[in-house]
Amino acid sequence: MRRPGALTGLTEVRDHSLKGQNISMAHDNDRLASYDQAVKAEFDQIEDLLRDLVAIQHRPDFVAQAQHMLQEHLGFSVPETLLSNAWVEGLDVKSLAAFCTFETYQRFANAAIQSQPLAHPNPEVFQDLLEACGFHWMDITPCSDGRLAHVIRYVLRLPTHLVRRKSYAGAVFDIDDNMNKWVEVELGRLRSSAGQVLSDSRYLKIVAYHYSSVDHAHEGCAAHGSDDEAAANAARDVLHAFQEAVQNSHCCGASIGLMMIGVDTATDRIKIHLPNADGTLRTECFVSSGDFFMPHQQVDGPLRQKIMAALEASAPGCSPGMVQLAAHLMTNNLAQLQLVHDHHGDGYEDVGHAERFIGVGVGFEEIQLRNLMYFAYLKTIEEGATDFAVGMKIFKGLNSQRGLPIPVVIRFDYHGHVPGARSRAVARAQRIAGAITQHYPDEIATGQLHYVQLVRDLDGPTPLEILGGTINADFGGAHP
Amino acid sequence: MRRPGALTGLTEVRDHSLKGQNISMAHDNDRLASYDQAVKAEFDQIEDLLRDLVAIQHRPDFVAQAQHMLQEHLGFSVPETLLSNAWVEGLDVKSLAAFCTFETYQRFANAAIQSQPLAHPNPEVFQDLLEACGFHWMDITPCSDGRLAHVIRYVLRLPTHLVRRKSYAGAVFDIDDNMNKWVEVELGRLRSSAGQVLSDSRYLKIVAYHYSSVDHAHEGCAAHGSDDEAAANAARDVLHAFQEAVQNSHCCGASIGLMMIGVDTATDRIKIHLPNADGTLRTECFVSSGDFFMPHQQVDGPLRQKIMAALEASAPGCSPGMVQLAAHLMTNNLAQLQLVHDHHGDGYEDVGHAERFIGVGVGFEEIQLRNLMYFAYLKTIEEGATDFAVGMKIFKGLNSQRGLPIPVVIRFDYHGHVPGARSRAVARAQRIAGAITQHYPDEIATGQLHYVQLVRDLDGPTPLEILGGTINADFGGAHP
Repeated sequence: MRRPGALTGLTEVRDHSLKGQNISMAHDNDRLASYDQAVKAEFDQIEDLLRDLVAIQHRPDFVAQAQHMLQEHLGFSVPETLLSNAWVEGLDVKSLAAFCTFETYQRFANAAIQSQPLAHPNPEVFQDLLEACGFHWMDITPCSDGRLAHVIRYVLRLPTHLVRRKSYAGAVFDIDDNMNKWVEVELGRLRSSAGQVLSDSRYLKIVAYHYSSVDHAHEGCAAHGSDDEAAANAARDVLHAFQEAVQNSHCCGASIGLMMIGVDTATDRIKIHLPNADGTLRTECFVSSGDFFMPHQQVDGPLRQKIMAALEASAPGCSPGMVQLAAHLMTNNLAQLQLVHDHHGDGYEDVGHAERFIGVGVGFEEIQLRNLMYFAYLKTIEEGATDFAVGMKIFKGLNSQRGLPIPVVIRFDYHGHVPGARSRAVARAQRIAGAITQHYPDEIATGQLHYVQLVRDLDGPTPLEILGGTINADFGGAHP
Repeated sequence: MRRPGALTGLTEVRDHSLKGQNISMAHDNDRLASYDQAVKAEFDQIEDLLRDLVAIQHRPDFVAQAQHMLQEHLGFSVPETLLSNAWVEGLDVKSLAAFCTFETYQRFANAAIQSQPLAHPNPEVFQDLLEACGFHWMDITPCSDGRLAHVIRYVLRLPTHLVRRKSYAGAVFDIDDNMNKWVEVELGRLRSSAGQVLSDSRYLKIVAYHYSSVDHAHEGCAAHGSDDEAAANAARDVLHAFQEAVQNSHCCGASIGLMMIGVDTATDRIKIHLPNADGTLRTECFVSSGDFFMPHQQVDGPLRQKIMAALEASAPGCSPGMVQLAAHLMTNNLAQLQLVHDHHGDGYEDVGHAERFIGVGVGFEEIQLRNLMYFAYLKTIEEGATDFAVGMKIFKGLNSQRGLPIPVVIRFDYHGHVPGARSRAVARAQRIAGAITQHYPDEIATGQLHYVQLVRDLDGPTPLEILGGTINADFGGAHP
């Protein structure tokens, strides 16, 4: 059976990439760019194909022909019930669009889980560097805006499995949730030390806020009303509050390193803010990677020295390890600026939101691509109402205006080795589905909003498990 | 200004109790019984007083006379707006009843926070015993049924500040939440050890389920359909699952001790289930305190030996420390059985539910009294819908049938030293209030359901802070 499309083709790219450790930046850039384009093309061709199907829906052999075209262009067929009534009622484009989006998402996610297409060429180099710089853990909170979803692997060129990421609207993370994570990390570290004296290393917490150099007033962070200063101030405040919370609750030894990164969503340029001698961050003090970028330049010793010097000058008294790590992130970012230059010229074509679906819940680790998904990280709609409402508003502009449905993927990942974890994840997914139906009854009834519920066992490369959704049909590639 | 009533009078009792460490059981019993009666009397006289006010509501000097009577009997006056329109519209008994309940609750809670009326006479004895038995932490999950709220200080005679309590409907606790707590406790222990080798002590997790010896079929645990076996099985299963979850997530060294206690809500007799040699609990194997109780007996060495022997026989291979601790709990319970015998004869008069209000949120540590409050421990109504619905059902029987409103206290405690903690607690309380209004619009509109929102800073003996509620009036003893 032919399985066309980029999702499966990516395995080759990855096999190739693992041949040598010292993969060149150019090679890494080609690989990252082609994966990004291929995945998005899979989503974007759905609309074109559905337009073609609409045009032929009244032909007598429509069902067979449609399945053939779906198989040929998208790589899967759809449940016959989504096609067979077209001659009576007209093709149900909304259900079909939602089904194809969910099916494409699953195929993409399962392929990513299986073959790790974004595997970093040399993660151990980063691990060693992080430790040498005095940190045992790196945790980034980006804004949940889809234009920041690629911050780890693309913008900063880091291995995704070595950096914890949890997105929040406006990058203002939940302090209690982050305290729990800190406590868990520290316990693991202390337990594994088996009573030995521990190194004086720190937990590094980074917030990635964003702004737009193309259209400051409209394409900045929606959660902060596109006010760049407000976005940066909020990032600084939540970081200081987190540090203080940990220190107040777990005494002086509990030291946390802080860093703030501003991402220009139009160009992927970054501003790095480092803490000065007394540990505070300032929004007006930063170094911008744009100042060091020249197309096709060699990132050599002198350039690194210049970057280090600029970082040091921006935050007098900052720890040398922090400066060194920041310099690493900044030189990494130069590779991304080269990618953007090569593939997008002066900046991205999609300056604004162009996400393909909304993701709701806890999980989605495979989403490391820009502008693919709007993420509402939440456990209940009651608490996450704002995050979800922002997503709905964005998609009413993106999809509803064109008559297309808003596709919502509800997903909760769990650890299968924890008893009852799966059933709790399932219950959460079902509760969210119920709450969405309760909050958006009209959108559900008219097919403007479709959802699918998924869970995934993180203990192993297991595929997504489909629980159900608004479309009463099978998912998951069961179709020949 | 005269401040009558038991709430303030209790300070004397407490001062007296601290004079000697070896307070006799009889003295402790008198003190506990009189506090329980006094607090409940404060709540119960509200209805009588309101009936008296109704009878005189059309007198010309009603407002002044009503305030005088309120002050004299309840110890506080009420905002005049709750009285002044009675001559036109008839007395708004529902708002008045809710106001008086909320005001009484606050006075009770603030007095309890301030003067610690249930302070244990010798907490250090228990602390030493716990450690000697091989445990560094004791954590009890009782059912959220109000008839179990006194389990720590009354039924088991333990110091409340040395035992963590968090109630769940059916005593089936949230494993993830409890894992977080375990991790936090272990981190604190490891950090404070400063690299020294730690003792081999364990974290003790206890579940207290319940049944009724008077009316098994109707007065058992509502969450398990009054099926005693189902309640015990659920307790066993969640304990085993928790142990497995911790061990799977944090390897073999993470050992957890388990114990299960069944409480007869009609008599406060307990059944203790201990784990046998392979660590498993069995619902059919237990020792019952009722078998050892004789009124006014001396709890001497031979009796203790008999209890120890029975416990050992019930769980072959159980650790000696666990048996010793269980024997301590069982002899403690004999004191409570004496209290019940002295003050309630063969068993409680209020066999069924008789809670005075519903508590929703996180906190309520001062609620250590039986059948005073139905507790829905939750952070969102979306997740805690079942717990809250069970409470509403109970109160529709208790209050609504008599025309009285259902009083709901929404409360979130927080640690003031954690930045932003207060504003998060406030946001939670407001979100819950909004969700209740959304879920029960008719009950709110007709005054059948009233709520008040409170927060409290746990870092210090600070009183409750009132945020607002359905009654547009001042609370908190601002009335002369």
